Amino acid sequence: MLSSPAPANRPRQQLEGIRVVDLTRILAGPFCTLHLADLGAEVIKIEPPEGDPIRAQGHGHAGLSWYFAAFNRNKRSVRLDLRSPGGMAALRKLIATADVVVDNFRPDVMEHMGLDWTTLQTLSPGLIHTSINGFGETGPYAQRPSFDFIAQAMSGFMSLNGNAQTGPLRTGVPISDLVAGTYAALGTVAALVRRGQTGEGERVSTSLVDGLMSMGAFFASNFLATGELPQANGNDHGLVAPYGLFSAADGEIAIAPSNDGVYFKLLKALNLSHLKDDARFASNALRVQHRAEINAQINDALRSHSRAHWIDVLNAAGVPAGTVQTLAGAYADPQVHHQQMVMDVEHPGHGTVKMLGFPIKFTQSPCEVRLPAPDLGADTQAVLRELGYDDEQIRQLNTSQETTS
Amino acid sequence: MLSSPAPANRPRQQLEGIRVVDLTRILAGPFCTLHLADLGAEVIKIEPPEGDPIRAQGHGHAGLSWYFAAFNRNKRSVRLDLRSPGGMAALRKLIATADVVVDNFRPDVMEHMGLDWTTLQTLSPGLIHTSINGFGETGPYAQRPSFDFIAQAMSGFMSLNGNAQTGPLRTGVPISDLVAGTYAALGTVAALVRRGQTGEGERVSTSLVDGLMSMGAFFASNFLATGELPQANGNDHGLVAPYGLFSAADGEIAIAPSNDGVYFKLLKALNLSHLKDDARFASNALRVQHRAEINAQINDALRSHSRAHWIDVLNAAGVPAGTVQTLAGAYADPQVHHQQMVMDVEHPGHGTVKMLGFPIKFTQSPCEVRLPAPDLGADTQAVLRELGYDDEQIRQLNTSQETTS
Repeated sequence: MLSSPAPANRPRQQLEGIRVVDLTRILAGPFCTLHLADLGAEVIKIEPPEGDPIRAQGHGHAGLSWYFAAFNRNKRSVRLDLRSPGGMAALRKLIATADVVVDNFRPDVMEHMGLDWTTLQTLSPGLIHTSINGFGETGPYAQRPSFDFIAQAMSGFMSLNGNAQTGPLRTGVPISDLVAGTYAALGTVAALVRRGQTGEGERVSTSLVDGLMSMGAFFASNFLATGELPQANGNDHGLVAPYGLFSAADGEIAIAPSNDGVYFKLLKALNLSHLKDDARFASNALRVQHRAEINAQINDALRSHSRAHWIDVLNAAGVPAGTVQTLAGAYADPQVHHQQMVMDVEHPGHGTVKMLGFPIKFTQSPCEVRLPAPDLGADTQAVLRELGYDDEQIRQLNTSQETTS
Repeated sequence: MLSSPAPANRPRQQLEGIRVVDLTRILAGPFCTLHLADLGAEVIKIEPPEGDPIRAQGHGHAGLSWYFAAFNRNKRSVRLDLRSPGGMAALRKLIATADVVVDNFRPDVMEHMGLDWTTLQTLSPGLIHTSINGFGETGPYAQRPSFDFIAQAMSGFMSLNGNAQTGPLRTGVPISDLVAGTYAALGTVAALVRRGQTGEGERVSTSLVDGLMSMGAFFASNFLATGELPQANGNDHGLVAPYGLFSAADGEIAIAPSNDGVYFKLLKALNLSHLKDDARFASNALRVQHRAEINAQINDALRSHSRAHWIDVLNAAGVPAGTVQTLAGAYADPQVHHQQMVMDVEHPGHGTVKMLGFPIKFTQSPCEVRLPAPDLGADTQAVLRELGYDDEQIRQLNTSQETTS
């Protein structure tokens, strides 16, 4: 726990010495514990005999799913059959050594497992128990099965994507899982700060729907203030013009002037300053009304040079501009390279795995890959021994697992 | 700071006693400090004489932007002209009392203001300084102006949205700002945990692009493993069928069976169990190949009843299903109501403001609105007095602000 010293050769990480028992699988839960692990916590991933289903999903090399590898770096793996009394007994012993337990079961599964709040606090006084679910821990939909697509649909998030032709469109990535996992990490770490002051444990939860709802930004407040539903505007900005994708000589370029000042900089950079006096474009409201005309003027001006030219010129002029990159483009981008957002990680026995880097940068104690993603049950023996199990008992636990799986 | 006691009538909040000096404006930064404020920190928002530009944006009532109100609840406001020596002197005194400083200036602006890391640590030993920027603190694009649309485009995030007809499509909400703000909060709170152990300060930063990049999920790992670019699939799932929007008697319904087990439950609930033996649909891979045919079968079955009927039946059967809700539908939803995700908050002088609720739930010390969003400079006098300014000095500071604004 917190008393363990940092190795002498590097600064103490943010969550170093915090032990997390991780009962999650698939995506939202493992993304939460990935954050905790990247921040330095010891995350012990409890896997069923057959392993986290993600081990069998996604592409990879040398018997390793790179999806699994990316979401489970910096974690340890203990293989435990929680359907067996022996497995549950070992889990309870492990929880007694933990600071945090994270689950993404449906609400009340932990209680059915005999791991209600009171029991957890008895096992480990001051424990933080964090849960991620679909719709919230209580309420009429609490027991519904959940999935990212449904959360995007139910939360209103999808209704803001797409355009008049497409109707509501899902965001491509499973954004509700990723947001809920991040909120669960934030809530957990905040509860650790409180525990540092009070010694008290905390019950933290978040849901796929609540997480996305909290991201309504000005769409939410404007709808609540006026009762008028926002329109999905594709790549246009509903309230700003010019804004969106334009055509340079060799392809599309994204330009986003956020206010009149930046709009004037755009006109100057494009040699269009005479449009400042054009009555049709005298205000943002008028430009929204004459969007097609102002866009045509800008496209005419852009057509003379390449995207690369304009991106340099516009950014130097203070106008946000960039290309629409594929993943290939983004991952080869010099800035992305500089930020180390794609990393090579050695996985002994599985070769070098490429994965995304750390979005949060710390100067004093940067995140790092201390451990590659574990093989299934790689740490079972070490962790059970630490809990007082002898080799024979560990063998028996493993045997009973093999018969039930 | 941390020694201040919690009021006797409620449990101590997670970040109670933490003082945050908030130099941010607009969206990403204020979303970070909103999280810190909702978790109980004392957030002192430093506003220029003319105020955060968001005060003048979005709809509202009685002279208050509800967008501003939602993003600035639980904060205090100090009006300070940082272009004047007196304003900067007051800021330095205030930072000397702070645990955290947050900015969303372009990289190196803090240094130009004389607030480099060494100076900040001298002013307040152990201070955590958190920055949010567009592309990262260093690297070839570090000085570029940034904006959500550009971050969505450059990061590859947009390339995963939309479908073959639309091409890359922005996600409607300014997701890069919201994600970066949340990561900045997570990094800040993690640094507070570390400071609790070591007493040391930390320099935390994140960027709009790095935040979105970290959310590539399986698209990222599959691309990195294979070199094959993912396709944007609209509301279909590239790797799963059936999945997406289907037609009940009175409109569309979202259905997302994640694996064969759930697919069989769907067939049973729709009285289509005979399709289990249909060779065209014998595996997920075959169903992806025959997506149109399996979707037609499902649509035929759904057409007999309403969405409400099927949502009950399918969820009871363990199949994730829901409607695509507008914001009006989502905000009126009984589950959303139960989760208190839309709240009424009294703003003296501005009436009752509706705003989104708290996505992270704590059982022991729940988030609450302690303070409505402040009027511009509402806390200037109280905070400056606490710093030792007398009434005459405060009057002079205010006068100099009025002449420079």
